[in-house]
Amino acid sequence: MTSSVGIVGASGYGGAELLRLLAGHHEVQVEVVAAHSQAGKPVSSLFPNLPGARCFDAIDVDQLGELDLVFLATPHGPSLELAATLHAGGTKVVDLSGAYRLTAEGFANWYGEVHPHPELAPAVYGMPEFFRKDVAGATLVANPGCYVTTALLGLRPLSPLLVPGTVIIDGKSGTSGAGRAAKDHLHHPHLTANLGAYGAPAHRHTGEIEQWLTNDLDGPGVVDLGAVQFTPHLVPMSRGMQTTSYANLREGVSPQDVQQALVETYADEPFVHVLAPGTFPLTKSVVGSNGCQLSALVDPRTNRVVITSVIDNLGKGAAGQALQNANLMLGLDETLGLSAIGVFP
Amino acid sequence: MTSSVGIVGASGYGGAELLRLLAGHHEVQVEVVAAHSQAGKPVSSLFPNLPGARCFDAIDVDQLGELDLVFLATPHGPSLELAATLHAGGTKVVDLSGAYRLTAEGFANWYGEVHPHPELAPAVYGMPEFFRKDVAGATLVANPGCYVTTALLGLRPLSPLLVPGTVIIDGKSGTSGAGRAAKDHLHHPHLTANLGAYGAPAHRHTGEIEQWLTNDLDGPGVVDLGAVQFTPHLVPMSRGMQTTSYANLREGVSPQDVQQALVETYADEPFVHVLAPGTFPLTKSVVGSNGCQLSALVDPRTNRVVITSVIDNLGKGAAGQALQNANLMLGLDETLGLSAIGVFP
Amino acid sequence: MTSSVGIVGASGYGGAELLRLLAGHHEVQVEVVAAHSQAGKPVSSLFPNLPGARCFDAIDVDQLGELDLVFLATPHGPSLELAATLHAGGTKVVDLSGAYRLTAEGFANWYGEVHPHPELAPAVYGMPEFFRKDVAGATLVANPGCYVTTALLGLRPLSPLLVPGTVIIDGKSGTSGAGRAAKDHLHHPHLTANLGAYGAPAHRHTGEIEQWLTNDLDGPGVVDLGAVQFTPHLVPMSRGMQTTSYANLREGVSPQDVQQALVETYADEPFVHVLAPGTFPLTKSVVGSNGCQLSALVDPRTNRVVITSVIDNLGKGAAGQALQNANLMLGLDETLGLSAIGVFP
Amino acid sequence: MTSSVGIVGASGYGGAELLRLLAGHHEVQVEVVAAHSQAGKPVSSLFPNLPGARCFDAIDVDQLGELDLVFLATPHGPSLELAATLHAGGTKVVDLSGAYRLTAEGFANWYGEVHPHPELAPAVYGMPEFFRKDVAGATLVANPGCYVTTALLGLRPLSPLLVPGTVIIDGKSGTSGAGRAAKDHLHHPHLTANLGAYGAPAHRHTGEIEQWLTNDLDGPGVVDLGAVQFTPHLVPMSRGMQTTSYANLREGVSPQDVQQALVETYADEPFVHVLAPGTFPLTKSVVGSNGCQLSALVDPRTNRVVITSVIDNLGKGAAGQALQNANLMLGLDETLGLSAIGVFP
Repeated sequence: MTSSVGIVGASGYGGAELLRLLAGHHEVQVEVVAAHSQAGKPVSSLFPNLPGARCFDAIDVDQLGELDLVFLATPHGPSLELAATLHAGGTKVVDLSGAYRLTAEGFANWYGEVHPHPELAPAVYGMPEFFRKDVAGATLVANPGCYVTTALLGLRPLSPLLVPGTVIIDGKSGTSGAGRAAKDHLHHPHLTANLGAYGAPAHRHTGEIEQWLTNDLDGPGVVDLGAVQFTPHLVPMSRGMQTTSYANLREGVSPQDVQQALVETYADEPFVHVLAPGTFPLTKSVVGSNGCQLSALVDPRTNRVVITSVIDNLGKGAAGQALQNANLMLGLDETLGLSAIGVFP
Repeated sequence: MTSSVGIVGASGYGGAELLRLLAGHHEVQVEVVAAHSQAGKPVSSLFPNLPGARCFDAIDVDQLGELDLVFLATPHGPSLELAATLHAGGTKVVDLSGAYRLTAEGFANWYGEVHPHPELAPAVYGMPEFFRKDVAGATLVANPGCYVTTALLGLRPLSPLLVPGTVIIDGKSGTSGAGRAAKDHLHHPHLTANLGAYGAPAHRHTGEIEQWLTNDLDGPGVVDLGAVQFTPHLVPMSRGMQTTSYANLREGVSPQDVQQALVETYADEPFVHVLAPGTFPLTKSVVGSNGCQLSALVDPRTNRVVITSVIDNLGKGAAGQALQNANLMLGLDETLGLSAIGVFP
Repeated sequence: MTSSVGIVGASGYGGAELLRLLAGHHEVQVEVVAAHSQAGKPVSSLFPNLPGARCFDAIDVDQLGELDLVFLATPHGPSLELAATLHAGGTKVVDLSGAYRLTAEGFANWYGEVHPHPELAPAVYGMPEFFRKDVAGATLVANPGCYVTTALLGLRPLSPLLVPGTVIIDGKSGTSGAGRAAKDHLHHPHLTANLGAYGAPAHRHTGEIEQWLTNDLDGPGVVDLGAVQFTPHLVPMSRGMQTTSYANLREGVSPQDVQQALVETYADEPFVHVLAPGTFPLTKSVVGSNGCQLSALVDPRTNRVVITSVIDNLGKGAAGQALQNANLMLGLDETLGLSAIGVFP
Repeated sequence: MTSSVGIVGASGYGGAELLRLLAGHHEVQVEVVAAHSQAGKPVSSLFPNLPGARCFDAIDVDQLGELDLVFLATPHGPSLELAATLHAGGTKVVDLSGAYRLTAEGFANWYGEVHPHPELAPAVYGMPEFFRKDVAGATLVANPGCYVTTALLGLRPLSPLLVPGTVIIDGKSGTSGAGRAAKDHLHHPHLTANLGAYGAPAHRHTGEIEQWLTNDLDGPGVVDLGAVQFTPHLVPMSRGMQTTSYANLREGVSPQDVQQALVETYADEPFVHVLAPGTFPLTKSVVGSNGCQLSALVDPRTNRVVITSVIDNLGKGAAGQALQNANLMLGLDETLGLSAIGVFP
């Protein structure tokens, strides 16, 4: 029996990527493809890779409430209410926005707004590699930010080995991470063959990284790693994201300890590949897929670890991970619809 | 029961794309991944999107002869003998090179070599849209050239409507079409943000287009369309190919006749989408997929038809079409392993 | 003594490129940098390559009328009146728009508007290679379109050798040719690694090509070459333009005739380089410069000539050629401010 | 009276960029354009932006010895001897390689070779912003590495304000920085729309940064800043380089102190522009020019400074800076031949 799902915000890149992925998923039926501003227009008018006659639907909360699961690919504003309403009605929700990723206090700090549903914040955090059981039992899952996913897949398994206050994350993103709306700084002539930083030092993903870097590792030895330095950059490509993460290692931590922590964490994971130290992952290896590749090296001169980690910002960084979460929530094989391999070269 | 297949020339882009596609194909088992010069090296050392321990195999003709089907992703030189040997032994072969696409006479003209197996040339031409039944019954299929596929999907249904001697094809290709070998003119600093023509006026695909543009439409009214003008260009992107084809229309041919010929030809085709006149296809709509999108417009000022047609040169232009042919030859659903949708944006 | 000049429409790419070029021109002083919608904002806020405190000026026709020369980098709408007013007052004008390139009749046909100043249309056409003396004596010069410049530099010297009705021009442009305004189809994620046609078959540059392809070659043997087929494409790079032009040669025209016509035409030209037949120019060879490179080949199978020609669409295709015209109009060395060589690689 | 100069290694990107720049320099005559492996071939065969009949010369040390100044754009191996020989004969030398940038001890550490001329190492370090007088009086100048230039322009003025052992530099380079030789990892299909790290943690520029970050600031309060963490990345564009540098600020250092140190250092510099904090420079702002743009921000949460700095790796990062040094050494205006503004967009 197939499950019925809907996508709200399907006119954005995250929503459209879900539509692309779900076209190859045989256990799920996409009943609703809603987009507030585009209702009635053909999907193909915005996404020419999806030819056909299907048009965007209007957002009808009652209709959504009858589905098994709804993906919210909306900005955090609309998601705040939609998620709460659907959740209250018993519909499962994967929210791709930042609405439910932080504590209510963290949300106030980083988004500058009072959270209207503090009792639901944070929702279960949708990184299956760390919270698989919680996701499988959840009705509301907060799908992580793209930079956060990239960075945490590399840093979190190592967090007990790191010196607090020394984590620096240099992020590089393809431009689709900035969304579908045409803007001056995303105009093709402006951005092609160009690179620059933006949004530092207070990009919202900083707070999300800080919250989820160590929080459930609550054995006796766990130390808060403190403030994280994060600087994102736009790179002239559409898809692909890398974080280069730096941190000082605690005394006595060896390169073998670092590699072992990564290899053990991901030994059975279908989407995360740990490369040998000294091999650097390439973003294009995972474009179009739900994969992550990462590697860590230890610099003996500085006793720092340098972790490079790559994903497709619309795949594991958004729609791919959302589908992985949805599969778990619906009791399906976690990898359904996600078997595509990175489109290289 | 799965079929056993092998890929020869798996260290090239066409071969590696086959490997990428076949990883998601459940009715076929890839037994051999052979590459003459790379035997023993990990596949991932060349194709980081394919992590894992698998290494390239040596080419062992006896071993290949025990498989159900072999993809030859080799240059035409090695293919000439390999295809003949395997075919003689009863192994099915899809040859991605130009070895068996032309008549022996055409091969001599365009490749400057005497064909060693003229009795096999041309093999069944692997465009299922035009030769589906022949492909399904064949043991040796010549997989078409990428430019040829792009151009013919647009031109062939219209060939009875065109004036001989007026066909001009302006081709634009992503750089992966030039193969995996590093060369000066394909060096990234040289080619990025750059565009230029090459290979005109005697690119080998010219002869292939001429041969297959009309040859089996042998009703009484068929006219040889004569010499074709073809100019290929390299475009600064890895994948994606467009041909812009121009031809004079015969007297009395209407825009409706043109559109109808296209729509009827492709009404039931799973991979070819005809767009409305005035809508121009984008290469990125089909990157990573086996799809083709095309449209035709008639210019009333000149009575010419202008056809724009896009594919992924490694997809429908090489490995995707090869797999489509193999599915037919093995009696499988033609679309297996080919359900991926173009990776846009 | 320096000449005083102004730029109107300096917030567009053509205007800003003029500002960039004029910064290195020692005989001209830029007194006005006007931009209707951006007046008061720092130039560097739109063009970070031009740091400094200078702000855009408002458009003040009286002020402009006191200058020696005004560049109009405005759309054809505003240019229609501004050019006429300034010209009436004796100020020299180089108009980069299409307002004065066509006859009044042609303007009505291709722009769908009645020309308000038919007595001024067409103005002197600003291709110094063909109209140097006229430009030097003009007060109003219509700066040619980018595609038109690219195509005519290759085709015009050959026009007596061509068969009427057979000219086909396949244009490829970097995206800066589409202007500075952010739009969906020019959004970086949409367009990077992508290619498509647009605007055919009735792009306005078609009429401009037809008008100027043969019109002053009025010896007894000159034949109107008739309707031209033109299909423009967007290529994923910011700057750079190529036209690939096809035409049938008249009987008896030899490859030597073709090459000689080009070489003789451009023997003394500072900005146009004719390459050997079989060598194809690359767009990046001329990016950032006022240069053009072109070559022609004759296909003996079809008796067609194929001409590939490249420029920087903002250089020789807009601001560079405008400055070349202005130098002539001001009695200066034609090459002042234009010595930069293409930024390759 | 013009000075006579020669370029050795003119077939590489640094050498060819010198040739491009010197074409617009009226006080210098390029007498020799030498390239070991390409002698006798036309320059235009490698660099199509430089059309014309000039061919590469063979390397003739006696001939070079008669010139006023020689640019060595050779790898460090050939430069070691050529520079010493020419210097001994009294010819001025700007060496673009790493041969003379480090102390002999540093050279042994980072290049793994015994320096054959330790008495000349290090030569005067060619950053005019910091060593202008030394350069003007030198006969042998070591032109800095591209990453080193980018990083030091941002970090060096701040070095007294930083905590030792905390400097981390994340470098992003266009691919022309990797040189003209075609290689697998620089093949266009491989690298376009792709990003990855390389060469960490022991890239040779690390040692060069460490050596020149503080060494001549030898007032009583100067502290060695210790080991630097440096991770370079390749970005899919040809030209353009950014470093994102991180360091902890000493207690009591304010954001105003940081900005003031930068503004004062570069107040009179023709090529370095300090942007307001919070404005991030774009690489394309300086492509094709000798410019540098940089900005610094202080993160109050972490008390770190984050400095982003951009250059053209072939401009200020190689040939542009070499010409700036040569102008000083020849007693010319430092900016001759370097007036070009960044080619944006």
